[in-house]
Parts: sequence; C-alpha cells; structure tokens
Amino acid sequence: MTKLKVSIVGCSGYVGGELLRLLLFHDQVEIQQITSERFLGKPASRTHPNLRGITKLNYTSINDLEKCDTLFLCLPHGVSSSSINYFASKASQIIDLSSDFRICDDTLYEKWYGKKRKSSKYLENFVYGIPELHRDKMVNASYISSAGCNATAVILALYPFFKEDLVEKLPVISEAKVGTSEGGNKFSMATHHPERTGSIRSYMPVLHRHTAEMVQELSFNSTSKIHFSATAIQMVRGVLATSHIFLKRDLEERDIWSLYRKYYLDERFIRIVKERQGIYRLPDPKILIGTNYCDIGFVKDPNSNRVVVISAIDNLMKGAAGQAVQAFNISNNIDEIKALEFPGFHII
Amino acid sequence: MTKLKVSIVGCSGYVGGELLRLLLFHDQVEIQQITSERFLGKPASRTHPNLRGITKLNYTSINDLEKCDTLFLCLPHGVSSSSINYFASKASQIIDLSSDFRICDDTLYEKWYGKKRKSSKYLENFVYGIPELHRDKMVNASYISSAGCNATAVILALYPFFKEDLVEKLPVISEAKVGTSEGGNKFSMATHHPERTGSIRSYMPVLHRHTAEMVQELSFNSTSKIHFSATAIQMVRGVLATSHIFLKRDLEERDIWSLYRKYYLDERFIRIVKERQGIYRLPDPKILIGTNYCDIGFVKDPNSNRVVVISAIDNLMKGAAGQAVQAFNISNNIDEIKALEFPGFHII
Amino acid sequence: MTKLKVSIVGCSGYVGGELLRLLLFHDQVEIQQITSERFLGKPASRTHPNLRGITKLNYTSINDLEKCDTLFLCLPHGVSSSSINYFASKASQIIDLSSDFRICDDTLYEKWYGKKRKSSKYLENFVYGIPELHRDKMVNASYISSAGCNATAVILALYPFFKEDLVEKLPVISEAKVGTSEGGNKFSMATHHPERTGSIRSYMPVLHRHTAEMVQELSFNSTSKIHFSATAIQMVRGVLATSHIFLKRDLEERDIWSLYRKYYLDERFIRIVKERQGIYRLPDPKILIGTNYCDIGFVKDPNSNRVVVISAIDNLMKGAAGQAVQAFNISNNIDEIKALEFPGFHII
Amino acid sequence: MTKLKVSIVGCSGYVGGELLRLLLFHDQVEIQQITSERFLGKPASRTHPNLRGITKLNYTSINDLEKCDTLFLCLPHGVSSSSINYFASKASQIIDLSSDFRICDDTLYEKWYGKKRKSSKYLENFVYGIPELHRDKMVNASYISSAGCNATAVILALYPFFKEDLVEKLPVISEAKVGTSEGGNKFSMATHHPERTGSIRSYMPVLHRHTAEMVQELSFNSTSKIHFSATAIQMVRGVLATSHIFLKRDLEERDIWSLYRKYYLDERFIRIVKERQGIYRLPDPKILIGTNYCDIGFVKDPNSNRVVVISAIDNLMKGAAGQAVQAFNISNNIDEIKALEFPGFHII
Repeated sequence: MTKLKVSIVGCSGYVGGELLRLLLFHDQVEIQQITSERFLGKPASRTHPNLRGITKLNYTSINDLEKCDTLFLCLPHGVSSSSINYFASKASQIIDLSSDFRICDDTLYEKWYGKKRKSSKYLENFVYGIPELHRDKMVNASYISSAGCNATAVILALYPFFKEDLVEKLPVISEAKVGTSEGGNKFSMATHHPERTGSIRSYMPVLHRHTAEMVQELSFNSTSKIHFSATAIQMVRGVLATSHIFLKRDLEERDIWSLYRKYYLDERFIRIVKERQGIYRLPDPKILIGTNYCDIGFVKDPNSNRVVVISAIDNLMKGAAGQAVQAFNISNNIDEIKALEFPGFHII
Repeated sequence: MTKLKVSIVGCSGYVGGELLRLLLFHDQVEIQQITSERFLGKPASRTHPNLRGITKLNYTSINDLEKCDTLFLCLPHGVSSSSINYFASKASQIIDLSSDFRICDDTLYEKWYGKKRKSSKYLENFVYGIPELHRDKMVNASYISSAGCNATAVILALYPFFKEDLVEKLPVISEAKVGTSEGGNKFSMATHHPERTGSIRSYMPVLHRHTAEMVQELSFNSTSKIHFSATAIQMVRGVLATSHIFLKRDLEERDIWSLYRKYYLDERFIRIVKERQGIYRLPDPKILIGTNYCDIGFVKDPNSNRVVVISAIDNLMKGAAGQAVQAFNISNNIDEIKALEFPGFHII
Repeated sequence: MTKLKVSIVGCSGYVGGELLRLLLFHDQVEIQQITSERFLGKPASRTHPNLRGITKLNYTSINDLEKCDTLFLCLPHGVSSSSINYFASKASQIIDLSSDFRICDDTLYEKWYGKKRKSSKYLENFVYGIPELHRDKMVNASYISSAGCNATAVILALYPFFKEDLVEKLPVISEAKVGTSEGGNKFSMATHHPERTGSIRSYMPVLHRHTAEMVQELSFNSTSKIHFSATAIQMVRGVLATSHIFLKRDLEERDIWSLYRKYYLDERFIRIVKERQGIYRLPDPKILIGTNYCDIGFVKDPNSNRVVVISAIDNLMKGAAGQAVQAFNISNNIDEIKALEFPGFHII
Repeated sequence: MTKLKVSIVGCSGYVGGELLRLLLFHDQVEIQQITSERFLGKPASRTHPNLRGITKLNYTSINDLEKCDTLFLCLPHGVSSSSINYFASKASQIIDLSSDFRICDDTLYEKWYGKKRKSSKYLENFVYGIPELHRDKMVNASYISSAGCNATAVILALYPFFKEDLVEKLPVISEAKVGTSEGGNKFSMATHHPERTGSIRSYMPVLHRHTAEMVQELSFNSTSKIHFSATAIQMVRGVLATSHIFLKRDLEERDIWSLYRKYYLDERFIRIVKERQGIYRLPDPKILIGTNYCDIGFVKDPNSNRVVVISAIDNLMKGAAGQAVQAFNISNNIDEIKALEFPGFHII
C-alpha cells in the first residue's frame, strides 16, 4: 500500500513533538516535512531529545512546504486561519490543532474569544474533531479541526446526558485539574521551576475559551449552562475534569451505566471506569500518560440528584496529537487505533 | 507569668506533630506530656525527626495523663467522645481536634456520619473552633472543637455571602484540591509512593463528612445547598477550595471586596488575595505551608452571576494544629498570633 | 509463523506488569499464563489498571503452570533457585529476573549476599543477561539471568574502560540516583506518600548487592575496585548513575568518543549522549521512561585524569523487563527491538 | 536595646527574600532599606508573596542607599567586589553573599574561576563565613563573606577528617544532589516547568567553582584532592552531599562518632544523624527546609577503608541567608540562634 505523505507545521512545540512521535511509528504514513522557523535546519531531536536516533528529519521553513496528502497544523491560535488558503493549496487534507476552526457560530465565537471573526467557506467545511461525536462526517473529510483538550474531557463526559435531555436547567459546574504542558513551551517567571513546582494556580476560574466548544457540542434543545474553571496543579501532562450535573429525574447508577454503554460501548478509546474498590477505581490521568484514552467515571450523590462525572485524558494525546491521529485514521479509512496502541503505564 | 501546662494526646500523628512543634516555641506554654501508645517511652523525635535536638520529651501513655491546664486531643474520630469524662477530669480546658464535637444537631450528624449519636452535655458545651466566626464564645471557653480542614477553607470563603443572604437558591459547588497529609499517617497500597505520586484521586466526590460542618455554619434563614467534592492531588500539605456560588443580585467585584472587608478586615489570619497580575495573584496553598493563614480570592464571571471563590490553607495548620493554637490563645487571653508568626516560604 | 508461548510467573508486581505490557504487544508471542498467588483468579487489570480493556488474562497459581516455550520469573530473590527444577520442567527456556543466578562465583556471592550458596548445574548454565556484553552466548540460550538495574547502568557505562584496561588502580566511585519503583510494591511507613515525597534517602551507601555484578563483569586482569552507593530521590522510575573513574593515561574527550563507538556503535539500545548545549545534553532518565535505552554521556575533568561517566536507564525497562525481552528476542532469533520500539516522551 | 539598622541589597532574588523573611522576625534588627532596580518602588510582597501583610517595605535603588550598621549584599557574582568602596562607605559591616570574597588565594581563584583577579585590601579583611570554622575571627568582624551552599555542606561534613589528617592520599569524591533554587530566579527554557520537572540534570560534573572553597578550607598540610560534582534533581530547596573518603587508618564507627563530637558537640546548628532504624536515620534535606541546620551522617564500609559521609542543608538557609544571619549574630554579639529558631517540618 502506498503510504500517505504528511507534513507537520509547527513541529517544535509539545503537540508537534507528540504528533511526530506518533506518526514516526505509523506504518501507513511517511513524514515528508516538519517545520519550525526558530529551529530551521536543525534536527528534530534538538527540540525533542526523546527522538535521538529515531529520526533524521530536520526542520524546514513553513515557506518551503511541498505538496502532500495531509497537513497537520500545530500553530498558535490565529495563524491557521489567516494562512488557510496557502495551506489548502499544499494538501488535500488539513487537520488543524488550533482553535481557529472549532467554533461554527460567529456569535458564540465572539462571546468567548472577545473579537469579531469574518466567516469563511473554510469554516463551514471543517468537521469538529472529536471522533466519538462526529465519526460519520469525518470519513473522507478534507478539513478537520481538533478539539481543545479541556473541551474534549468535558464534552465526552457529559455528551450522553445532554443528548438524552437528562440535565436539569441548573448550572453545570466543571472544574478541570490540568498539567503545565497545557501552556506549551513558552517559558516565563510563571513557569520557572522553583515558582511553579508545588503550586496550585487558579489560572482560569471564568471565561475559559474552551467553554465555547462545550456549549456548541452540548446544546441541543436549548443553550446549556456550562460553567467551566481550570486549575493548574503539580503535573505536566493530564487533565482530570470533575463535572457536576443535576438530573431531571433521579437515575440510579445502573441507569447511568446503561446510558454510557449506549453511547460508548464500541468506542475503543473510551473506558467507563467505576469500580467498587482499588486505588484506581475512578479515572486518573496518571495511568493515561501517552495514551489516547478518555476514561470516564461517575458517582451519584445519594442525598441529591447530583451526578459527579470524572473524566481523564492526556491533554497532549486524546486532547491534541492523539485525537488528531485518530481523526486522520478515520478520515483516511485506516484502522482507528493505528499508532495509538500504547496502553499507558501503571506506575510512573 | 506562670506558663500554662498543656498535654497533647495522640501526638505521634501528623497533626500532633505540628501541635508539638508550635507549642514548643510558645513562650506561655509548658508542654507537660505527650502521649502515644505505639511509641510509649520513645522520644518525640522518633516520630518527628524535625524535632531532633529541639525537645527531649518522651511519649507517655494516655492512661498516665496527669492534671494539666489544657488537653489537646488528636485522636481518631470516635475516641474523644467515648472517653470525654476521663479527659475532662484531667484538664480544665479541652481542645478536641477530631470530628466528635463539631456537629451540634443530631439529625445533621446522623445524615452525614451515617450513624446515630447519643447527645451529651459535653456536646452542648463545645464551641465550634473557627475563631473568625466564634471568637466571642471562645474567650474563656472550656471546650473547643477544632473544625475540619476542608470545612475551614470553604466556610471562611463563603461565610460573608451566606451571612448577608446574597446566595441564590441554586446549588453551591465546592471542589477542594487536597494534599495527602489529610489522610494521616496510616499507610497502605493506596499511599505507596509509586502508586500515589502523580496521581489525581477523586477520593470523595460526594458524601464528604465535612459538608455537615459547612451546612451547619452557613445555614442562616434556610438550609444551604452545598455540594462538596474533594480531589487528592500530588501535594502533601495544603487545601485549595474552589467554590462556585450564584448571587441573588449582580454584585460588582468592588462590592465583593467591601463584603470581605466588612467581615475580615481586622482578622490577622485572613488575607484577601486578588491582584491584577503576578504569579500568585490568587490564593495558592504552596506559599501558606506552615502558616496559619487562610488566603481568600475571588473572580466574578462577567457572563453570569457566578462568583468563583478560591480559598487556600495549610490543612495541618489553619486546618488543624494552627487553628487549635489560635483558639487556645483566644480562650486563654493570649495574643492570638502567639506561636503562629511564621510567614511561610516564597519558594519551596 | 507460530507464536512462542510464554508465561510470566509473579506477574502482579511492577516488573511483572511491565513484562506483561510489553509482551501483549509482541507479535511473535502469545501469553499463556500469568501467575499471582495473592490475586488468584483476578484479572490482570486489578493490579495493573493501565491494562483495562487491553487484556482479559486472569491470574493463575504458580502450581498450575502449564508447559510453555519461555517462562519469565519475576519472583522475590531466593525463590527462583529453590524451585528451579520445577520451573525447568515446565519450559524449554527460563528467563529469571531475580538475583539468584547472576553471580557465578560462590565467594563473590557470599561476600555480597552474606550467606553461603550451594552451587548447582543450573547456575553454570545461566547467561548473565546484559545483551551488549553477552549477545553471542545468548543466542539459543535456555537460561538467562537478567541483570540488576543499577548494575546494568554502571556496567554499560564503564565496560569499555575496564575492557581496554584504561582504569588506574584507584577507587572507582559510582553513585546512583534511583526512583522508588526499585523497591517494588511492598508498602510501608517508609514509602507512605507524605513521608517519601520530597525525601532524599541514602538507602544504600555501602554494601549494595549489585556491586557484586559490577565486580564480576568489570574485572578482567584483576579485581576492580568499585564502590557503589545508591540514593533514592523524588522519582518513581529511573536510574542515573554518576561514575567517577581515573584513567591510566590522559585521554582526550575525542578518544573517549572513539572508545564508546568501538564498543557500542551498532547497539540499538545504547546512545552516547554528549552535546555542547541544550537542556538534555547529558543523559537524563526522564526522557527514557518506558524505553529500553541506556543513554551514556561523559565529561573529562580538565584538572585531573578523572572522567565522570553519566548513564541513565528506566530501571523497570532496560533495568528489568525491557532487558529481559531484549534477551528473549536475541535468544529466539527475533529482531532485537521487537516490542521495545517505544521512543519515550520528551516532556512528562 | 537599640536595634541594629540593616539593609539588604539585591533583595528581590530568592536569597534576598529569605534574608528579609528572617530579619523581619529578628528582634534586634530594624530593616532600613531593601533594594531592587527592577522592582523599584514596588512592595516587597510583589516579589515575595509570602510576605503579604507582614511588611510594608518597598524596594529602593542601590544608588539611594543610606548609612546603616550592616549591609547584606545579595548580588550577582562580580558586583560586590567592583562596588566594594561604595558599599563600605555606607555601613560599618558588610556581609557579602556572593563568591567575590570567598577565595583568599589568587592562584586558587584563577584556577577555578578562570580569570585573573586583582587583590585588594578588602579581600584580606573578609572572614570566610562558615561560623563553625571561623567563629573566633567573626566576633566583631566588619567583613564577612558567606560560603557557597554546596561548599558549606561538603566542608562541614569533611572538616574533622582533614583537620585530624585522617584522609588517605586518594581522591575524595563528593556528589551533591541539589534543588533548582540554586540557580536563582533567572528563568529559561531549561527551568520551564514541563522541561525541568522529573529531570535529573548533571549540570556540573566537573569544574564546579565551589570546589575552590573546599580546597581552601580542607587543605592543611597539603592540598586536598577533592573532586566535586553536582546533580540537580526534582527538588526546589536543599542539598544532599554524599562524600566518599578513604581513611589512613581503619577507624570504627564509634571512633568517627567521637571525632564529630570533638568538633561539633557544642554547635547548635550541626546535628550528627545516624540512627539504627527509621525512615530518617541518615540526613535528609526535606526535614531541613527553612532551618539553619547542617545534618551530618556517615557509614563506614565494612569491606574497605571508605567512609561515606552524608550531609544535608537547606541551600537558601545554612547555605546562604541562614548562615549570613548566624554570622551576623556572632559578629554583633547576639545570641547565635536569634531569628534561626525554626525547627523545620516533619512532612512537607
């Protein structure tokens, strides 16, 4: 079989590095180019030392992109959309990992991003990148917009409840505990090791932009009232989202089991984790490091109609590079799990 | 001035160790006895190596308690109440750090503790131990029941809102990120370093007993709808509580400032932390390690009437030993800050 | 091709779990049985939650072992040798991961293990399991004894110097910084998270048994004077060994480069890591987590004939399960890298 | 008693912050000025958030220094010496925390610092700042040069052996495990949290400048052969130095006990830590955080004449600010322990 030629634009960052790592071991892919303006001409291992001896690829310029089958864009927000014509001329498929093409509705975008946006035909063509929700539209899709990491964790956790109209019209609070890799590789005093270590930073108690994605994907009959907060803890990789919803009717835990089974039974990257005992009886991002899983667990409050849903992902994997590869596989009719087989570590 | 003679019962645990550390440097206190059945006859430094060369105290048995002025009880839940007559015969003042005497109402107790309780005269005599709420009753009090660590963080954060009847009749969600010292020194596979490190454990998503204290202290005209969850993260000491409340009227941030000033302006252990910039612009338990502060910050959601209140404490200090010493000082007409002057570290 | 049938004895521990993880993805292997007495009948994911949904294997008893091609023994020290006849009756190949068959010489064994040992024919048949030193003897070997983790890191680092007789007759000091997974899954107060976190524990300043392996493998013309110390730090996986040797003649750094190239140029799991700049210019076990690499770097002291050799491995991989799989591959004429392709993470 | 007026020059860094924290609670000191060019006019709590509500001091410029009794200099290496005349005109006592005045001998300086230095009269007047070695010269001293953190840990550990001429003419290897605060508050990609966390960085295997101090303080009859390496681990504060010395005669452990007692019995900040059992039976910098202790332990190798000496300090305290305050106290005839009473935490 002919391998698909792919290039990774903006490959020197953390998400780019993970994409590169995954695709180097994808046997139906040939990596054609990786770009970085800052590390032009340097080997990939200069930025990603784990790849020493694994690849001899060197960074090229975004201006020297050659035609390829698929272009993965790992660029700062705003850059993909402003150069979309250029990128579209280079590849028949674009998978964008920025936020530029995630939000369809201009009003919703403006509310959360704080600025107007001019619509474009590309915007309409992009499929929102969570495979479990949009797999059908992904097949043979040319334009895919990968979802935000926190959005992915919350949306997958709550989708069945909203889809089945089970959520009472009360505020839904979702609080994500996130790792420092979410901030990328831009260093500052705030990320200086002695300052950051051991810190719990309430970095986005309100107004987190990923909320727009949650509202978009979880609003069916009416706009969902989702309140999202993010707290950065002592962790590099991982998201644990704790979401509190109030049910219209008082479901028992076995009903909630059934609900999840209905939606996710055949999903290879979603596991319902809820055990009676054991250290890891609810989802824990620690054992998901490097994997594409979203583990989802829940507890029903016996004293109220509250359900606490706990969902965990690796923000760089299911929350970024892994999700993008999964979407790439689906859209190119490749086995969905290809290059995403890694099961994670128990202790680490 | 004559020093007060105090004894610490159950001193080999983490809270006992902190109490001992504090009281050794309290110049109006003489530590008479420390008890531990397991380490009988051994020096305090056997369990608390930081006290090597600081004290020569050895552990004695609870059965050999001599009369003293104040007895600090750091015992497993249930033990203080079952032996309260014995303890009361040994000291004119008892400061209990267990949960036995925190909840006044038997129904409330039964709901959260899952078992009946026989009322006792002692129960009525105990003052709930958060000084900022009950300072007046503490002066000359003979029986003080120290508050739960998570309860302290949440109650101090939300008290002014509830007291002023500003909270809408919507669920209040409070999510605490807590350190592993909350579990005490009982080791198990769950606390084994390779298992616990890097883990995020949703150890009490519902039914946390500290909720009873929050309901007790924050219910004025009607029962408050507080939903509390606790998540243990990679941290040893500290609590960061993120509480989401919805206001009846749309206060501006400066109104909230005024509210906190009204209640806490003269409090020496409460700081309102809310700055426009800087790494530590909201409360962070890291810089409170070893201190008796409760730092409180808040952010008003511009898109709704939600206020996110962020409060941080050291669970072993303001959440246990520090709070107990503060209450001890107040009740004995000693300067409130005595032995609690430590300002904390910037980096650690 | 027919798959090889393998069983893992003592699979519930950390090394067993890693072996299982690796072999589940080895396409020339079929896992026949995994044993654990404590978790008899329970699924593998009970002990290794990362394998949820990956395998349906349940634990069986060591007494119910069926015949297979290869038996991996992950048992406490002393057990493999006492039951070696039984194990040998069950499989044509045994790969033992304990220390029982590592030391050939009875006197050397007795000196470091502090007890006599009766020689056995099995002992003579075991090949010491570092592939880079004993690959020839491994091909078609029936009995392989995997090396100690610290021993592997130090031996691979120093082998070329000793082999070429370049080391002056001065003490060689090697100091390993090790993670807490080296201690296995036996929990105690010493491994309780609040006690262990942030601690630096000089747990074996002298008398570490792995020294015996170093002496065995690095003594050519005369007994080498190796002094090994191990310090456990805040880390779960990984070993970084810092070895100080004094050279007979004053080699320049390029000579040392040549030396390493001579021995390790074609080795797929050894990388010489020594760059002029960059954060990871010398070996760091962090980027080796989950990999089978041994990264080796060095610095020559301009003021003396000292060379500091720095070597890093993942103790559970190249130091245990990975090394065993590598040896298994070699001995069964399978591509050496099979199931060991994972390149590691950059940030984690 | 009149308080001494002190100013801290370069107070916005980590060492300056610790000095400020200590001196704010020193009852014989009044802090007159703190300087920072970068944070001119800003409150101290802007850089040191732990001091919120503790002090109202604002940063002033180094050019606006007023006369005071003691000037603490926390400046980058090279600055103190180039402006020494200016500083000397401002205060009757200078305590310099840089490396400028530590090395008396020009040749030794040149060897380790790689550049020539012009001698100055000030150099001769500076007392090397380890109180346990130079207390006599410190009394009433006008100029004190605080020792390097790693140098302090190693020198205090080995001093009695060298002073008594017990060390064989073999290389002494000392390997320090150090925290990231040693690098100060200059951030870079190397200190970016996702990069630095979990890393073990062999940042100075040879040529560490603190070696010069060790050679200076430990050479009596002949130059001592000290080889020092430093490895940065996952830790913010702390140094654990593991030093390997070979003895001329085969001392027993009780002899070594006696040796340490002879030198350090009356020292209030040195504890010999060597217990038969327990988690903290040898020194551990974790329990020294915030204290001025140097804990020293040792193990004699039964198989050779090697002694492994393990010493631990908090690099910002006994290794910098604490040592400076101790020296300040001695030189001003104040109780040596003043402002340094903090005993450290057990768990943290």
